[in-house]
Amino acid sequence: MRTMAVVGTGLIGTSVGLAVSRHGVTVHLMDRDETAARTAAALGAGVLAAPDGPVDLAVLAVPPSQLAPVLAEQQMRGLARAYTDVASVKSVPERHVLAGLGDASSYVGGHPLAGREKSGPLAARADLFEDRSWVLTPSEATSQETLNRALEAISLCGAVPVLMGSQEHDAAVALTSHVPHVVASLMAARLQHAPREASRLAGQGLRDVTRIAAGDARLWCDILQSNAAAVAGVLRELQADLTDLLAALTELSAAPAGGSPGGVAELTGLLDRGIAGMSAIQGRGGAPAAGPVRLRVVLGDRPGELARLLASVAGFGVGADDVSPRGGGPGGLEVELAVASLRAEEVLHRLVRDGFEAERADRRVLAGALP
Amino acid sequence: MRTMAVVGTGLIGTSVGLAVSRHGVTVHLMDRDETAARTAAALGAGVLAAPDGPVDLAVLAVPPSQLAPVLAEQQMRGLARAYTDVASVKSVPERHVLAGLGDASSYVGGHPLAGREKSGPLAARADLFEDRSWVLTPSEATSQETLNRALEAISLCGAVPVLMGSQEHDAAVALTSHVPHVVASLMAARLQHAPREASRLAGQGLRDVTRIAAGDARLWCDILQSNAAAVAGVLRELQADLTDLLAALTELSAAPAGGSPGGVAELTGLLDRGIAGMSAIQGRGGAPAAGPVRLRVVLGDRPGELARLLASVAGFGVGADDVSPRGGGPGGLEVELAVASLRAEEVLHRLVRDGFEAERADRRVLAGALP
Repeated sequence: MRTMAVVGTGLIGTSVGLAVSRHGVTVHLMDRDETAARTAAALGAGVLAAPDGPVDLAVLAVPPSQLAPVLAEQQMRGLARAYTDVASVKSVPERHVLAGLGDASSYVGGHPLAGREKSGPLAARADLFEDRSWVLTPSEATSQETLNRALEAISLCGAVPVLMGSQEHDAAVALTSHVPHVVASLMAARLQHAPREASRLAGQGLRDVTRIAAGDARLWCDILQSNAAAVAGVLRELQADLTDLLAALTELSAAPAGGSPGGVAELTGLLDRGIAGMSAIQGRGGAPAAGPVRLRVVLGDRPGELARLLASVAGFGVGADDVSPRGGGPGGLEVELAVASLRAEEVLHRLVRDGFEAERADRRVLAGALP
Repeated sequence: MRTMAVVGTGLIGTSVGLAVSRHGVTVHLMDRDETAARTAAALGAGVLAAPDGPVDLAVLAVPPSQLAPVLAEQQMRGLARAYTDVASVKSVPERHVLAGLGDASSYVGGHPLAGREKSGPLAARADLFEDRSWVLTPSEATSQETLNRALEAISLCGAVPVLMGSQEHDAAVALTSHVPHVVASLMAARLQHAPREASRLAGQGLRDVTRIAAGDARLWCDILQSNAAAVAGVLRELQADLTDLLAALTELSAAPAGGSPGGVAELTGLLDRGIAGMSAIQGRGGAPAAGPVRLRVVLGDRPGELARLLASVAGFGVGADDVSPRGGGPGGLEVELAVASLRAEEVLHRLVRDGFEAERADRRVLAGALP
């Protein structure tokens, strides 16, 4: 790829320009707002001059609702040989785009999974997309050449391409992005008339839950509108849970302590399903590591012996998370240490040197027993 | 304070023990689970031996529902001269506590605003409470001596005391802590049966919104149960917003593009109220800083001039956030830099040295015009 056009020099468009310019691609920047385009150019995202002929790829970084008209207009002008976009909703725009396009083979929908709460060209970063997923949603009409040009641009941005159907994409982002935004906004809206003292009790938990609610309201309105059906589907399920939970809380607030086992079960049920849901999105992708070796250590009864143990093994990357107490007796406290198998011998050595009684699963090693 | 008892050596109790032990206070550790108490002692949070006589203060770090019976039992035994607790709900426990206590003057409710997703003594940290708010909710019966002992313990933990009524406290934490937890769980529960591909689209936003849902389900069930009425009150308001939003989304998904101005207004309204709510909990507490000095810089038309400007001022703590484009003309792009007033002269010096045309509000400084 030698030439590219970026239409819309906001956060995403400017970041694309910065990323591909590093690889020697000539990027032509276009925006209805001349200041935005000049700012992007001044950052080094590309040039303001119009291209002489059709560029290899045009990236349309405009809000979802403007995508179809902008694409139709630019295709009519012959801006590029292939087109993609970065809108976070794909199926409704795809229908409009395909209905309005002379040549549907030159378009492939795209959605880089990257963003910041800040918007505009000044928030752009050349490394915004590095190691992030970048979805492409080829339609039946999309040509292989178009798809390859988009894949090359993604590669130049350092992102990881993911091919999906547009409807599959929209259902997924409703769940992972759009409903979370709505939930953050619903929570943040409750704080609007919070009593002054309440803000002194606000901790990191509240800040995390509400952080994304700070995003650009107009852009998010556009996004939610374009994916309204999928978002409403997930929110209806959430509302059903909320209705059950409210019934349980109402019952619990009326009942004497411990007097509503049904209410407690409902409450615990929701919290447990939340924990299960967390694990559904975590720990995927990584291969399971080799199991750690378990070392058993018996600590004397002096206060602070466990702190001394942690200090002893800190240099081996073993922390409090790797320690499980196994019970105590008159002799002291017995704990198990989970240690990476490659370092187990070293750790054992150190423990013994520091005067701890330690053993592995297969053999017992007493203080002083190692060379 | 010379002696303290910690009843319940989980995350909070053990952290209190670690924090006050540093100051030479003898801490007696007690837990129904002997392994937990031994673990806390082994970490250096205190001793396992029972005190000879009443200690100066007993900190009851047990779940809200166990507070009243544990406090009644310990007061009968004469464990301490004063008692406080760390439960995150205060008014219902206060009623039970006062009903069951022989001497209500020796008790003051407490709630340190600190925690981690991890629980148990091994997650404890001596600095867990540093600079955190620690609420005390004295009742009419609480003696000044009791209050002063609790204030001293808070001071030894490095926390900031906040006095509130117990009902006022419960309404505030419903809003800032309990409802956010429910909201995180409601969102996380939706992920339980997410399609496999969806996890590749999960970003930081989703992780932040759901993070606290990973907390201990039994403990949180207990907390929500103890504050059920206040939590339900906030959740009912949230549900009303959600119902309106669902109606708007349903309308929008049925209407042709741009065909539902009422739905769009509803959507934008919620997002805007969320943004307003965010600002209600932020920026409080800190004194307003002295206004920055604004510098105007005119950039030449060469690509990358703004990047060169940012590099030029990076050493002065001035970043892209401090730059506002003011419009462009044939001469290039004009931007304003917001610079801390104390550093403004230095920054101006550097800009001029690096060949930029820069001015302040009061006088224009051209390239080379400074000594």
